[in-house]
Amino acid sequence: MQFKIDGKSFHKTRACTIKTAHSTIQTPVFMPVGTQATVKALDANDMLSLGAKIILGNTYHLYLRPGSEIIKKFGGLHGFSKFPNSFLTDSGGFQAFSLGDNSKPDENGIMFKSHHDGSKHYFTPESVLDTQYELGSDIMMILDDLVALPNTKERIKKSIERTTDWAEKAITYHKSQQEKGIGINQNIFAIIQGGTDKEFRKLSATQLCALTDFDGFAIGGLSVGEPNAAMYETVEWTTDFMPEDKPRYLMGVGTPEDLIENIERGVDMFDCVMPTRNARNGSLFTTYGKIAIKNAKFKEDAEPIDKACECYTCKNFTKAYLNHLFRAGEITYYRLATLHNIHYYLTLMREAREAILADNWVEFKKEFYKKRGIEI
Amino acid sequence: MQFKIDGKSFHKTRACTIKTAHSTIQTPVFMPVGTQATVKALDANDMLSLGAKIILGNTYHLYLRPGSEIIKKFGGLHGFSKFPNSFLTDSGGFQAFSLGDNSKPDENGIMFKSHHDGSKHYFTPESVLDTQYELGSDIMMILDDLVALPNTKERIKKSIERTTDWAEKAITYHKSQQEKGIGINQNIFAIIQGGTDKEFRKLSATQLCALTDFDGFAIGGLSVGEPNAAMYETVEWTTDFMPEDKPRYLMGVGTPEDLIENIERGVDMFDCVMPTRNARNGSLFTTYGKIAIKNAKFKEDAEPIDKACECYTCKNFTKAYLNHLFRAGEITYYRLATLHNIHYYLTLMREAREAILADNWVEFKKEFYKKRGIEI
Repeated sequence: MQFKIDGKSFHKTRACTIKTAHSTIQTPVFMPVGTQATVKALDANDMLSLGAKIILGNTYHLYLRPGSEIIKKFGGLHGFSKFPNSFLTDSGGFQAFSLGDNSKPDENGIMFKSHHDGSKHYFTPESVLDTQYELGSDIMMILDDLVALPNTKERIKKSIERTTDWAEKAITYHKSQQEKGIGINQNIFAIIQGGTDKEFRKLSATQLCALTDFDGFAIGGLSVGEPNAAMYETVEWTTDFMPEDKPRYLMGVGTPEDLIENIERGVDMFDCVMPTRNARNGSLFTTYGKIAIKNAKFKEDAEPIDKACECYTCKNFTKAYLNHLFRAGEITYYRLATLHNIHYYLTLMREAREAILADNWVEFKKEFYKKRGIEI
Repeated sequence: MQFKIDGKSFHKTRACTIKTAHSTIQTPVFMPVGTQATVKALDANDMLSLGAKIILGNTYHLYLRPGSEIIKKFGGLHGFSKFPNSFLTDSGGFQAFSLGDNSKPDENGIMFKSHHDGSKHYFTPESVLDTQYELGSDIMMILDDLVALPNTKERIKKSIERTTDWAEKAITYHKSQQEKGIGINQNIFAIIQGGTDKEFRKLSATQLCALTDFDGFAIGGLSVGEPNAAMYETVEWTTDFMPEDKPRYLMGVGTPEDLIENIERGVDMFDCVMPTRNARNGSLFTTYGKIAIKNAKFKEDAEPIDKACECYTCKNFTKAYLNHLFRAGEITYYRLATLHNIHYYLTLMREAREAILADNWVEFKKEFYKKRGIEI
């Protein structure tokens, strides 16, 4: 992976370029979620038409179905889904923890039962990399030890230590595999934990970032219900312990406002189900804020979702038609809405990048909020 | 509507051209079903890319939601859905009968309760045309009196007489409306009833086809569970009572085999939910017959659905990927499968037309069955 900083603006904002074996990614970047080897309601060509340079796949889901060994036979996620740009895959640990039944971490990994059929599986720092080698993702995430919150300080501290231990095992294993010719074009990111506790975050960041063989670092364990202010403060604090010369990825975040606030706090990469899930629930993003397409006031509205939007849906269809399709439960709706919401997120990131490169961040952010009726 | 016969081949096969205000339709033609102003899982541009010149909308559904008065404000179905080619709309009578609660026909129309909210509505031969004027369809179907089968000969005879009576009312009303400038670009078809009884079919066809102001004639009430042979025999018999110089439409039919058999029996136009519904259920059409994409044998199948197929899905994706998407319940699957199945139907009709124009029907039909493992 090649990484360079192209420009900076206000506070910690930065615009970077990440080059993987499959694409050149300009940051700040939002990675649409394609859990099961497809972004829900869209296909590979849709993602290309949206200009997506990287999407996310979920290792837990793909490991269980169709199985990473099948995906490997098709040349990994790229060959299987036909999306030629980059993939980032998570470790599967979070889903084993949240979706798997009776998940149990121990010193060496996580035991869990499949939510499909109850079959037993065991994820280790090494096994989740083996799965991700088969998936062929451009960026692999390490297994981390998650704990349910709230929890005792002792248990959280243990989770941080274990996460560091597993990160060491992962990077050692990855280097040894690469020496054997496995995963040579694949990159690996560690995940900083510690909740919203500054000392824990500092501890985790310091320990992990000392492992300089990692290609990038993520901030995990946020956007799990804590107040926005606490999330922003934690990111502000944590990025100071992360290296300048590697990508910074804030996992599972967030709203357009969250993206803007965290770009300012030094984050380069984001992923979230929000644009895709909201689309399916009838919540569409515009420069003026969200709208609920089901609303009766749109029944005869001949305008597109957002007059300023250049997406396929806005160029072709009215709010009245989308309102009808949504109310009628038509599958057609889901693709049109998803295309729009992802286009919104990717465009916002492109505009943020331009603002940083033009050293115009403060004005850009002010305008972003002003259109939403918020003066800052 | 302009209508001309371009060529004939074996038995009653014919290739015709129908010209409406919105498109030129070459027959034999299959009309994909777009019940709620969209073909399920696809949009207007998808239909254009498939080369569809005409699709079907359901008056009952659109009358109830979003309401034909809203669709009228958008310039009818064409403006609302953005599909610029032709629409055929049914009368709504069949759905009022099959979906509406407590539907009751009387001398003047059909009373029924909406399946959405139980609200009461009354369809008359004139009111269903008023709705279809608002929908702006290129071909409107008349209200017919449907009876549950089996039934007494007396009741069936009464239904035929009533259908003729309503057809007379409909054509009189349509002509008077056209004189007022309403529906001047819209065409109207009558529907021949009579089940599989030859005398009833003859009676209905003779009475309706005597109403020479109709732009075309349909055969209704088939493909409702009768044996295939009975359907084919009824069509064979009925088309002899239908004029040569107007389109013949067999409603709600059918399988690829049904289309081939009924083209031979003199039918020009078809519609059916089969390609779209089967797609969603995992049943995909190929030149060699149907396949169930869920089948485990496709899990690692790197071939497209049909190697001979030129559709978007076959040009881009493997059976293994579609198998995975279907099993995973991904919305993405529905569009890809629907694109393929409709492409199959439309291509079959194009090939049938070419065979007729080349006076090569018998050979074409033999090949069609041979690829399916059937010698005829």
